[in-house]
Amino acid sequence: MALKIARRGQIPPFIVMDVLRAANERAAAGEDVLHLEIGQPCTGAPQGVIAAAKRALDGDLLGYTDAFGILPLRQRLAGHYRDQYGVAADPARIVATPGSSGGFILAFLAAFEPGDRVALAAPGYPAYRNILIALDIEPVEIPAGPETGYQPTPELLEKAREQGRIDGLIVASPANPTGTMLTPDALRDLAVYCHDEGIRLISDEIYHGIEYEQQATTALTYSDSAVVVNSFSKYFSMTGWRLGWLVLPEDLLRPVECLGQNLFINASTLAQHAACGAFDCREELDLNVERYRLNRDILLDALPKAGLTELSRADGAFYVYADVARHTNDSAEFCRRLLAETGVAITPGMDFDPLRGNRFVRLSFAGSTESVEDAAARIARFMR
Amino acid sequence: MALKIARRGQIPPFIVMDVLRAANERAAAGEDVLHLEIGQPCTGAPQGVIAAAKRALDGDLLGYTDAFGILPLRQRLAGHYRDQYGVAADPARIVATPGSSGGFILAFLAAFEPGDRVALAAPGYPAYRNILIALDIEPVEIPAGPETGYQPTPELLEKAREQGRIDGLIVASPANPTGTMLTPDALRDLAVYCHDEGIRLISDEIYHGIEYEQQATTALTYSDSAVVVNSFSKYFSMTGWRLGWLVLPEDLLRPVECLGQNLFINASTLAQHAACGAFDCREELDLNVERYRLNRDILLDALPKAGLTELSRADGAFYVYADVARHTNDSAEFCRRLLAETGVAITPGMDFDPLRGNRFVRLSFAGSTESVEDAAARIARFMR
Repeated sequence: MALKIARRGQIPPFIVMDVLRAANERAAAGEDVLHLEIGQPCTGAPQGVIAAAKRALDGDLLGYTDAFGILPLRQRLAGHYRDQYGVAADPARIVATPGSSGGFILAFLAAFEPGDRVALAAPGYPAYRNILIALDIEPVEIPAGPETGYQPTPELLEKAREQGRIDGLIVASPANPTGTMLTPDALRDLAVYCHDEGIRLISDEIYHGIEYEQQATTALTYSDSAVVVNSFSKYFSMTGWRLGWLVLPEDLLRPVECLGQNLFINASTLAQHAACGAFDCREELDLNVERYRLNRDILLDALPKAGLTELSRADGAFYVYADVARHTNDSAEFCRRLLAETGVAITPGMDFDPLRGNRFVRLSFAGSTESVEDAAARIARFMR
Repeated sequence: MALKIARRGQIPPFIVMDVLRAANERAAAGEDVLHLEIGQPCTGAPQGVIAAAKRALDGDLLGYTDAFGILPLRQRLAGHYRDQYGVAADPARIVATPGSSGGFILAFLAAFEPGDRVALAAPGYPAYRNILIALDIEPVEIPAGPETGYQPTPELLEKAREQGRIDGLIVASPANPTGTMLTPDALRDLAVYCHDEGIRLISDEIYHGIEYEQQATTALTYSDSAVVVNSFSKYFSMTGWRLGWLVLPEDLLRPVECLGQNLFINASTLAQHAACGAFDCREELDLNVERYRLNRDILLDALPKAGLTELSRADGAFYVYADVARHTNDSAEFCRRLLAETGVAITPGMDFDPLRGNRFVRLSFAGSTESVEDAAARIARFMR
């Protein structure tokens, strides 16, 4: 008898991963590839993390930890909030998770029932939408354009609620794929609106620390009911370590603890010990951010000259989102041709915005400055 | 406005973790504790894993990997199936996951719809039930006793189906909390029955390699539609590394790939590289199994003399499940008193069997032989 496959498991692929595979196949065939498609630093973890990992390998059995993670890590994270934001975050509210991915799973399951409706800006990180679908939560796309910095606003939420109940809102500042940021006032307005209206705010702060104009504000500053999601992957340059964290409101602590015990047991013990070393590496990490800034400036200068004039205002993260509607109505085909003809890999917008992504592309500038310069030159030739 | 907490997030705590915390608090207060409550080896990862981890720390950026994991690991796992079972498992069907926990999440979401009903033996690993609940799948407890080795059978399944549709079955051999095993014939009968009846078989093989009487058989031998779940936590002694794997049937490959990309991105890159070193460490790992065997023999000899005569037949894993009905009808209270009066931590049965767990306890003998000997002596005194 043929066995069933669940409909909810048939979520869209994460297109950037498919692009990565095509780029890797090209590279394996001996052709050069410039990787502007993937959102990860070209650097490894900072030296303090490597050293802490080796100490843990030698001195710890690396068994299970409490579901919330080891206390020294949670204390260092509390210190991070004090030092970077001037905000008090009790270590008892901070939870180590298997990447921010694991944090989203825990937060969504704790806060939302099957059938609940959660708003998010389009364009946005595709896994938000896809994890929601897999967990039987309905994503409600809020089309957001350059006029609001591709970010949701209380007015846009108000408008979306005319079509149906909204139970939650996901925001990211700096955002993927646009690099745009909410001003502190805009974040406060959203946080207060959500809290007052009984909408659970999920604030994805994964790109915090990678900012070029002003420091990002944490939703903790404005809300006692928001869930903050963060990770060691971006600023701390530890993607493959799969370690993130949540800062939870009081009412979700016990549900997340029980969910975490059962769904994950704990985040990687080795990664937890290693990450304790990350907070003393700000000098090394801030040099990465300076490289991102230089790369950003190269793209923001070169792309308009190449004819890509409609660019998002990348105030943070390491992405620029380009409106290519003047050149194509099929950004996937645009990306395929760009890769085939120049070896520059970038991501079509459909990953981030199922409604209008066909006329956008995302360029990541997390790589080396040489690769970004070279890519800019090749794109300029391609556009001619 | 008060914000909603999801009902599905309010799953029961994983009681063994709460027991662990009570035991740790006692230990922190300076009193001695013998840890027979937690199912993890008292050993760390084998030396080949530590060495491989250090090489990866020095030589690899540890960025994202493909959602299915690095090919060398999947090839080593394919070799493991060839060498240990004489079974061909194409690396293309093998997926590295964040622990077996992550494997269950992916398999359940890919195979089961909200509202589907999945059977599992009671007693059983509590996270099966709790993950199912969190993902809106209905667990169907199959009460199983010593007459079937605490394992399900086609007849018990047939009986359960009189009460309603069954979409899936989870089996574990060796099992937690009983250590009992299915014979190859019994596993084949279940696999064939499930395949013929359109029931998705999920075979949890996490305790494979820890066997005392006969080698465990993999469900791959008997079924092309079964999902095999396994992990580096038990035989390979790598609990805190959070690395497991799935062997998938063809029809679930693409759904699991898309789910994995979105829900986890990938299993820890460092753990993946390190685990490649595990397969050359069988000598060291088999010494652990010899210690478990010795510990088992000590308990199986001492417990009946202490009056605990109704014990599961622990042919594998590192647990013995004891029926304490002659002594108490409240095994949680029994465990609390045992810990308070003797310092021996064991787990009450309610974690594993909500129906009859009140008269059972689980003892884990994964610790040192000294601790098991000492615990046996203390339990004997306690029972007098």
